[in-house]
Amino acid sequence: MSESWKTVVPERDRQILERADMGKQEAWGLRPALLIVDVVRSFTGTKPQAVLEAIKEYTTSCGDSAWDTLPRMRAVLDAARAARIPVVFTKGDPDYKAFCGGSVKNEDPERARRLHSTPIADEIAPLDSEFVIRKTKASAFFETPLTIYLVKNGIDSLIVMGTSTSGCVRATAVDGQSHGYPVFVVSDGCFDRSPFMHDVTLYDLSTKYATIVNVASTIAYLKDFALKRAV
Amino acid sequence: MSESWKTVVPERDRQILERADMGKQEAWGLRPALLIVDVVRSFTGTKPQAVLEAIKEYTTSCGDSAWDTLPRMRAVLDAARAARIPVVFTKGDPDYKAFCGGSVKNEDPERARRLHSTPIADEIAPLDSEFVIRKTKASAFFETPLTIYLVKNGIDSLIVMGTSTSGCVRATAVDGQSHGYPVFVVSDGCFDRSPFMHDVTLYDLSTKYATIVNVASTIAYLKDFALKRAV
Amino acid sequence: MSESWKTVVPERDRQILERADMGKQEAWGLRPALLIVDVVRSFTGTKPQAVLEAIKEYTTSCGDSAWDTLPRMRAVLDAARAARIPVVFTKGDPDYKAFCGGSVKNEDPERARRLHSTPIADEIAPLDSEFVIRKTKASAFFETPLTIYLVKNGIDSLIVMGTSTSGCVRATAVDGQSHGYPVFVVSDGCFDRSPFMHDVTLYDLSTKYATIVNVASTIAYLKDFALKRAV
Amino acid sequence: MSESWKTVVPERDRQILERADMGKQEAWGLRPALLIVDVVRSFTGTKPQAVLEAIKEYTTSCGDSAWDTLPRMRAVLDAARAARIPVVFTKGDPDYKAFCGGSVKNEDPERARRLHSTPIADEIAPLDSEFVIRKTKASAFFETPLTIYLVKNGIDSLIVMGTSTSGCVRATAVDGQSHGYPVFVVSDGCFDRSPFMHDVTLYDLSTKYATIVNVASTIAYLKDFALKRAV
Repeated sequence: MSESWKTVVPERDRQILERADMGKQEAWGLRPALLIVDVVRSFTGTKPQAVLEAIKEYTTSCGDSAWDTLPRMRAVLDAARAARIPVVFTKGDPDYKAFCGGSVKNEDPERARRLHSTPIADEIAPLDSEFVIRKTKASAFFETPLTIYLVKNGIDSLIVMGTSTSGCVRATAVDGQSHGYPVFVVSDGCFDRSPFMHDVTLYDLSTKYATIVNVASTIAYLKDFALKRAV
Repeated sequence: MSESWKTVVPERDRQILERADMGKQEAWGLRPALLIVDVVRSFTGTKPQAVLEAIKEYTTSCGDSAWDTLPRMRAVLDAARAARIPVVFTKGDPDYKAFCGGSVKNEDPERARRLHSTPIADEIAPLDSEFVIRKTKASAFFETPLTIYLVKNGIDSLIVMGTSTSGCVRATAVDGQSHGYPVFVVSDGCFDRSPFMHDVTLYDLSTKYATIVNVASTIAYLKDFALKRAV
Repeated sequence: MSESWKTVVPERDRQILERADMGKQEAWGLRPALLIVDVVRSFTGTKPQAVLEAIKEYTTSCGDSAWDTLPRMRAVLDAARAARIPVVFTKGDPDYKAFCGGSVKNEDPERARRLHSTPIADEIAPLDSEFVIRKTKASAFFETPLTIYLVKNGIDSLIVMGTSTSGCVRATAVDGQSHGYPVFVVSDGCFDRSPFMHDVTLYDLSTKYATIVNVASTIAYLKDFALKRAV
Repeated sequence: MSESWKTVVPERDRQILERADMGKQEAWGLRPALLIVDVVRSFTGTKPQAVLEAIKEYTTSCGDSAWDTLPRMRAVLDAARAARIPVVFTKGDPDYKAFCGGSVKNEDPERARRLHSTPIADEIAPLDSEFVIRKTKASAFFETPLTIYLVKNGIDSLIVMGTSTSGCVRATAVDGQSHGYPVFVVSDGCFDRSPFMHDVTLYDLSTKYATIVNVASTIAYLKDFALKRAV
């Protein structure tokens, strides 16, 4: 598992940020939900290929990094289902984006409709019993019913995976912290078209808003969770 | 004026991000508001000094970069007042943060109270006629009356300055875009304890959520604005 | 035009409320939007009939009052289209309600799915160019992209029609005022399963949150609006 | 205990509303919070007197009904403290209302400042350990940190008292239901300048958004709660 996010920031800046003392790990929750952000075909592309090629198919595509991440996402998703914790998926709403502008500036209605009408990737497709939220903007929380669902289910913490790390995942993690939830971002369960922005985002989140975990530690937590529930 | 934010990201990543085509400049608005985020004493420190020293006074302090930026902020503020556009200031609310957690994870009530009880820096102090919002979390929009004020004043765009670039400024810019406003972030009107995070944040915002401007171009726009109003 | 809402409240209570001095009319706006709340088949029923009969078809049905109101709604809608002001429709989202609970307490997923899968009434069907918002809760604003659309379109005031007067119309009017918009509720463009609650709601809104208008005065305003635009 | 709210609505309307079947009682929660809405001196007045007299002192004053209710509120507050459940108070924020408009239309800045600068009534004054929220609009939830506090404290239900029943209490109850919380409104722990609007509001809430309880049943529940915690 790549830990490159821990060293992408220059040493002097890390020294400052660590002294500012905002980076402590948070403890896993007792009633977590898994949130899978925007893993739709227009972000994975229709097949594995270099990102500069993939962008020609969909400008939002992240290329090979998506396809490397999908099996790891699936492993976390399987563990969450085995632990019977709520799983929530998000995707862009093409109509809402066409009428209200997209997650990024300058998104015109036609582009919004084309990019956000693609389905969630088959590899991690939601079950009928899992909640799928259609969102207008970057954050999964922004003007969506996500908080209602979290309150109704007594959720106390969020595990976040998805794409792009620097865009919708980050905005969701910031809003999750703002809403009062400890947020656990799965580093190797996220992907971004820019490896550099992926790493810097994880580092930045770790110093401010989220605890960065990885697929292995998340699955271990969820297995332990399932075990305790079974007892 | 430093333009280092344009080159901080490795060339290959910039190539990807530019092909993804999200970076177009937006046009200045007709009814802008100026938003000055969190420029309180605990972020500037009580005097100019190296950031690693400044952190010993307040863990949130940004050191010399704050004091370099304050006169430039003041120049933009003066131009905004001359143009008679609404100016809004934000600062942390020590009580709200004590009861609800701060902008960052793991903020305990005592730390929150100490860091957020300091006043807005004298150098850019608000007038009685200017709106000061006390916020709980990173974004100036999060559970504050900011949107009400913007609607009441018919605002169509936001000019954002303040600190930290990678924290509250960024969260505010993302939320501003989400709420439907074109957001103009003044690169040399913002500061951060980490010069690297300052630059990367500006680049990232420029590819997704905001148009990055500088103090000189912002003042030119505001002068033009004042002139047209005078006619 | 029934003005019964002006006298439904006992005289002594009206005397108190009028002295509390909250009832002044607001001036019509310069950039209004028309909002049509929840006029779907499960609220009108499939045909005109007495409300106690209609409830047997759909528990949300409002019976004859719906069918009396539909042609008046249509007249306002036609005037709004002629004036080329933005028109927004809302309807319940059956999935969101199934996962998050409905507009009212105790709404189970099956009931939510059945009641909110019906289409907007043909008599006032939206055009492709008109924004349709699917909502989870009573207010058209609650966790929906409505505010984004209003900001993007520079809207300064809201004209509200729909159903039920005491439920989703009222919640929307209260939230509209909270968001900073003057709200004009069209008394005879709204309906409710209870004539008494319809009248009391209009009176209560008039003393606190909204200016109560009628179909005739709204059409006159919109015609004047269209005329000025044409000049 | 007055139960007049059960009969204030004409019988035929009640028959319709009861057949629409929205009125079922909800079960008390396991982690409740008590919310006391806007019980400040400008709503109680400085002394007990008839409401038409009281309005001359503060236009928001509710007269004798406030003073009749205060001891009952105090009894519930004492029971909540004994049960060690979180207690949250709200009051208007005079500055926010001056800049953003008040809870009701047409509220000018001076009136807002005068009415909302008065303190919470001594009879039920908050402790230092209790959260006081300053709000801009009718609902305790609207652009305030209330939801963050509820999430942080794992709250699953709300007990609501305060004033005015038809204004801020009602708006708070509707938003509480929207946010996903069962809401218990204490009928004789609320007051309104209009006895009629008080009663109609309670009936309307009972058919849509809240379970109406009274002081006696609320205290019984809280005592039981304290007892179980003590075991």
